[in-house]
This record gives sequence, structure tokens and C-alpha cells, in this order.
Amino acid sequence: MMRKVKPYLTTRKLHPENQESPIHFLRSLSTPANYFYRRNHFSYPELSQSSLWIQIGGLVSSPTFLHFDDLLAMPAKSLVVPLECAGNKRAHFSPKVHGEQWEEGAISQGKWTGVPLRYILDRAGVLQNAKEVVFEGADFGKKEDVDKVIPFKRSLPLEKAMHPDTLIAYKYNDQPLSFKHGYPFRLIVPNWYAMASVKWLRKIKVIPGAFEGPFQTNDYVFYPRKKDDIGKKPVTLLNVNSAIQQPLDYSILDTGTYKIKGIAWTGEGNITSIQLSFDNGETWVNANAEQNADSPYSWVNWSYDWKADKKGEYTIQSKATDSAGRTQPLKAYWNRKGYGYNAVSKIHVKIE
Amino acid sequence: MMRKVKPYLTTRKLHPENQESPIHFLRSLSTPANYFYRRNHFSYPELSQSSLWIQIGGLVSSPTFLHFDDLLAMPAKSLVVPLECAGNKRAHFSPKVHGEQWEEGAISQGKWTGVPLRYILDRAGVLQNAKEVVFEGADFGKKEDVDKVIPFKRSLPLEKAMHPDTLIAYKYNDQPLSFKHGYPFRLIVPNWYAMASVKWLRKIKVIPGAFEGPFQTNDYVFYPRKKDDIGKKPVTLLNVNSAIQQPLDYSILDTGTYKIKGIAWTGEGNITSIQLSFDNGETWVNANAEQNADSPYSWVNWSYDWKADKKGEYTIQSKATDSAGRTQPLKAYWNRKGYGYNAVSKIHVKIE
Repeated sequence: MMRKVKPYLTTRKLHPENQESPIHFLRSLSTPANYFYRRNHFSYPELSQSSLWIQIGGLVSSPTFLHFDDLLAMPAKSLVVPLECAGNKRAHFSPKVHGEQWEEGAISQGKWTGVPLRYILDRAGVLQNAKEVVFEGADFGKKEDVDKVIPFKRSLPLEKAMHPDTLIAYKYNDQPLSFKHGYPFRLIVPNWYAMASVKWLRKIKVIPGAFEGPFQTNDYVFYPRKKDDIGKKPVTLLNVNSAIQQPLDYSILDTGTYKIKGIAWTGEGNITSIQLSFDNGETWVNANAEQNADSPYSWVNWSYDWKADKKGEYTIQSKATDSAGRTQPLKAYWNRKGYGYNAVSKIHVKIE
Repeated sequence: MMRKVKPYLTTRKLHPENQESPIHFLRSLSTPANYFYRRNHFSYPELSQSSLWIQIGGLVSSPTFLHFDDLLAMPAKSLVVPLECAGNKRAHFSPKVHGEQWEEGAISQGKWTGVPLRYILDRAGVLQNAKEVVFEGADFGKKEDVDKVIPFKRSLPLEKAMHPDTLIAYKYNDQPLSFKHGYPFRLIVPNWYAMASVKWLRKIKVIPGAFEGPFQTNDYVFYPRKKDDIGKKPVTLLNVNSAIQQPLDYSILDTGTYKIKGIAWTGEGNITSIQLSFDNGETWVNANAEQNADSPYSWVNWSYDWKADKKGEYTIQSKATDSAGRTQPLKAYWNRKGYGYNAVSKIHVKIE
């Protein structure tokens, strides 16, 4: 007789599969693989023997193929890195924005192990006029606004590709990558929104100019205006952000003391403070943050003991600030495709 | 390598366990048991040998205990009955209402098999001054607004208890009831919101007056005013209602023809029409309803082929009407605890 109670992913779409992590019910610094959010542009790819190879080409002096076993033999590095979908929290935009209605769970985090991309590019010999590196996944299909079958492709500026923490990962939480999260290889790009962390990585190509694929120049672009493209700019670094995990929005509680719990994260530097307000932003108090000195990219778990001894309705807000001086704004930067939502987080509770 | 894609329950709370059915991704007239929504007031009860007995007492000439095997030997009846939480769609109220933020999946349906309660009450001999029948589940705990440990108890008027379709069910979809859905016995009260369908049924007591338990006179009551109890009335019959299953709200689609799919249900009579509007309610067209003549309580699957050949943003609304003459209103009847939401259903889609 099964009485175990466990949270589930929240289904946003089945084909392709898009499911949200039950972020409010997980408190670990490592999201278990089965609770990692799933975000796909296409159907899952078929794997074959050739999937175990990565092709390195373009502007390199030694174009080559690397086998899974080759990578295992190279110097490896492990990093705790959160991946966040650029559309995380899209459901919160006002005016509403079309697209997958992610609430707060299109983010997950764990320990990625792999080979620094730099090591592989150095071995291949990047030529002088290189500007960007293009990454191609094994997943492909028809995109609404493109009239042919295309693979998922994204590029990085050479500098980011050469950053020592940009990895070709083959392990997650000390286990081989699961198929749904990119087995055998997933690019891991710390600090960037997760469209950059290409799954089922198959090809790496160094190019002399700006890559113009539709996932680079059409999707994953901020369009601040509804009707035209004036002011557009590409989605890259994670915004500073936070989420209140417990209590849940619109919950009803007895009087008592409650631990308000949440996470905070950023794509520039690290989190320097998490402040909470219980009076609609008039005053703010500091939450207790558990810094992880040895995991510079990790989100921060925070908490605050709240004495709720007066009945009534309360709004609780959380606001994170990072070492680059960025703070969650009161109102999110609205954009037509609904990326990068990071307004101050807010829940409503009723004390009875 | 697991590539199967399946929907999940949506977690609303873990203790007690409240999880929503992925109603948008299920199209069967029978919700599989593992996708049945879970709504609990308390922790799951412990089962023991005594759980296999139901006590029948109060105003009856032959108070008695019935064993599981006794029920199996009695005349059985099977009915397809939807169970809907009275708080289903609470998240849609405006102004917002505190409490579990159920979206559209706090409803599930399947085939229940059991003994008509009437058969058991007739055998026990209901005495003349009987007015109500009280049902007690094995689940118990502390309720926010009551300062002691209490079991879950609800009553029915004698007339509803004696209705030939009010069952003591021991099977769901031809299998023994699962533990989480009331094993060994669950009361099934067709047409009523599901708080009446008591799980883990342990005691049945016939009483001469109106039962006053907190789940009867405090919860599951419509309070039309925020600050006082004027105008309150008990939650009983299901409102006429519908849900649009596909497409999903705020989805982006190519031009093309789409099957708009949904369900409609009611607690009075049966569904007589489902109408859709694509122009903000100016005109309405009839959807195709699949009536189930042999399952009078069942929800109705409906669909409509929509030719979306012009790009733009659309609002699609669905409105069900029942044979009692009730129609989904444009605005829901607001009430403080957020029960019975049944405004016209609405989704937004963008054709690109």
C-alpha cells in the first residue's frame, strides 16, 4: 500500500516535452535528475553509435572527431551550475505574453562534470579570425517561423567559449547524463540562460562572424515592443532573481512562526543580499543566506523566521541583489517573447 | 534509455497531499487511477484489520458492523461518476481567494462499483425521525479553526443518502480502490461536489437533525461577503461547467485547422449544449458533444474543428448548458472560500 508522498514535474506540453521542476518542494543544492525541468524545442533525437562522437570543425587548424572515450580521458572539472530557461516565470508578465506559461520551476541546478571546452578548442587550434563558436545538438524538427527542418543550433562569442568554466559535460550529480538532459554530451555555459547549454551536442564549429540561426536571431531575443523589432537585444546572462519556495502563494496559515524559504541566483558575480518585505515594500529586512564559497555559480538558499502573530492578509516580497550591483526591479522588463522575468518575487498569505 | 513522455500530477501541497490531475493531457472517459487528483484534509490514515469494517448506527432498528466480505456479497452497481473538488478552478477567482490554488484539474472521473447505500440502510432499518446520515472517514487531524483533533465527517440529507445511485464503492475502474482514494470503501455521491464522497469510510450514523461538523457548517459553505457570513449557503450540487483541454492557454500556433477539445459536466440533469466563441462572445457556435446515454453522470467530451487561417491573437471561450436550464455565467459567483467557480472557460492563442 503506497502512502509515500512526493512532488511531480508540472506538465506544460507533451510534444515536445516541456515540464517544470517542483521547485517549491525541493530544497537541495542539487536537483535530483528526475526533478530537473525539461525544456525541448523538438522531439527527442534518436541515438546511434555516431552519437558518441563530437565533430570539431570550421576555423581550426586540426578539424577532428572526438569519441566519448576520448573525452573521458581528458582533464575533467566539476561545477555546481543552475540552468534556467530564459522563459522562466513567463506566466507572471503583465500584459500577458504568449508562449509556454512557465511559472517558477524552469530552473534546476546540480553538479556538472566534463571537459573544459577551452581544452578541446586549444587542441584543435583556433585560427586567428575566429569570432564565434557554433554548437549543434542532435535534436531537429520544423520550427513555426522557419519553413524547413532544422537542428537546434546556438553560438557563443569566442571569449565565452574559451572561458575555463564552459564545459562539455558528460556527468550530472556524478552519474552519466540522463538521455532527456543531453546524453552523452551537454554544453554547460555558466551564467547564461540555458538555451546556450546545448543538449545532445554533436558538432562544434568555429566561425569568423556572427551566427544567424533562428534560435539566435529570432528566438532568445528581447523585443521591448509589441509590434516591431526596434530596440531588440540578444538574451545572454541570467538576470538577478529569487523565488519564494515556502509558504505557497495564497496559502492559509495559523498564527505562529514560519520559516520563509527561497533561493536567489544571478548571472553576474554573486548574490550579496536577499531582502524581504512584509509591508508592501515600505521596509525590508535581510534574509539569512547560505553562501557556498566553493560553488561560485550556485544559487543561494535563504530563509527567514517570520513571526505571524497577527491575523490578516499579508504580501511577502523577496528582492535579491548581486555583486554587479543589480537588484530585482519592482516591475519586470516587459518584452514580446517573455524572457528574463525577474521582478521582485511576491506571495500572499492569510493568517487565521 | 527512457524516452517515453507522460504527463504528471501537479503538486499543490505535500502534507496533506493535494495534487491536480493533468486534465489537459487526458482524453479518456475514465481517468487512470494514478492520474486521479488527490485532495486530502489530513495525513493519510493508518489501516488495520478494523479498517475492513463499517459501523452502521444511530437511528436504525438494527445497528451493525459490516465486513468487506459482506459488502462483496451484496448486490453491486457500477456507475461512471466524475468527482470534482468544490475548490476546482479557485485560482481563477477575481478578486483572488486564499486557499489551495487549484487550476482546472481538481476533477477526475471513472467507473465506481459498489453497493447502493440504500440497500444497507434498508437492511439496518431507518427509524421514522431520521433526517440526515453522517459519514466518517478514517482520516483525522487538527483543523486550523478547530482546537482539537477531529476526523473527516460529512452528512447527507436522508433523501440523497437513499438515492439508488449513492454507493459505497470498493472498486474503481474494475480494480480495488487504491489506498490514496479511499481503500477499502469510499462513499460515492453522484452530482455533489466531492467533499461528500467520503474516503476510508468507517462509520455511518443516522441522526434526527442537521449535522454541525466543521466540514459541514464552516468549510464547504458559500460566503458571498468578505467580512461577514450574511447570505451563506451550503455547497452541494456541482455547477454546470466546462474546461478547454486543447489547445493550451497562451499557446502559439501555426495557421491551420485545430481540433479544440474539452469536457463539460453538471450536477443537475445532463449537458444539453456546449457553445464556443472566437470573437469575445459576440457569436457562439455549437461544439460536437459525445453523449454517453448509458452513463448519465459522465462528463461529455466535446470538440470543434477550428480553421485558424488568419494570423493574430484570439480568445476562445466555452459555455456549457444543462437540462436544468443552467448555463455557465460570464462572471463567476465570488465567494470568500472560493468554491464552485464555473464562469465561461477561456483560453488565449496566437496564430503566427
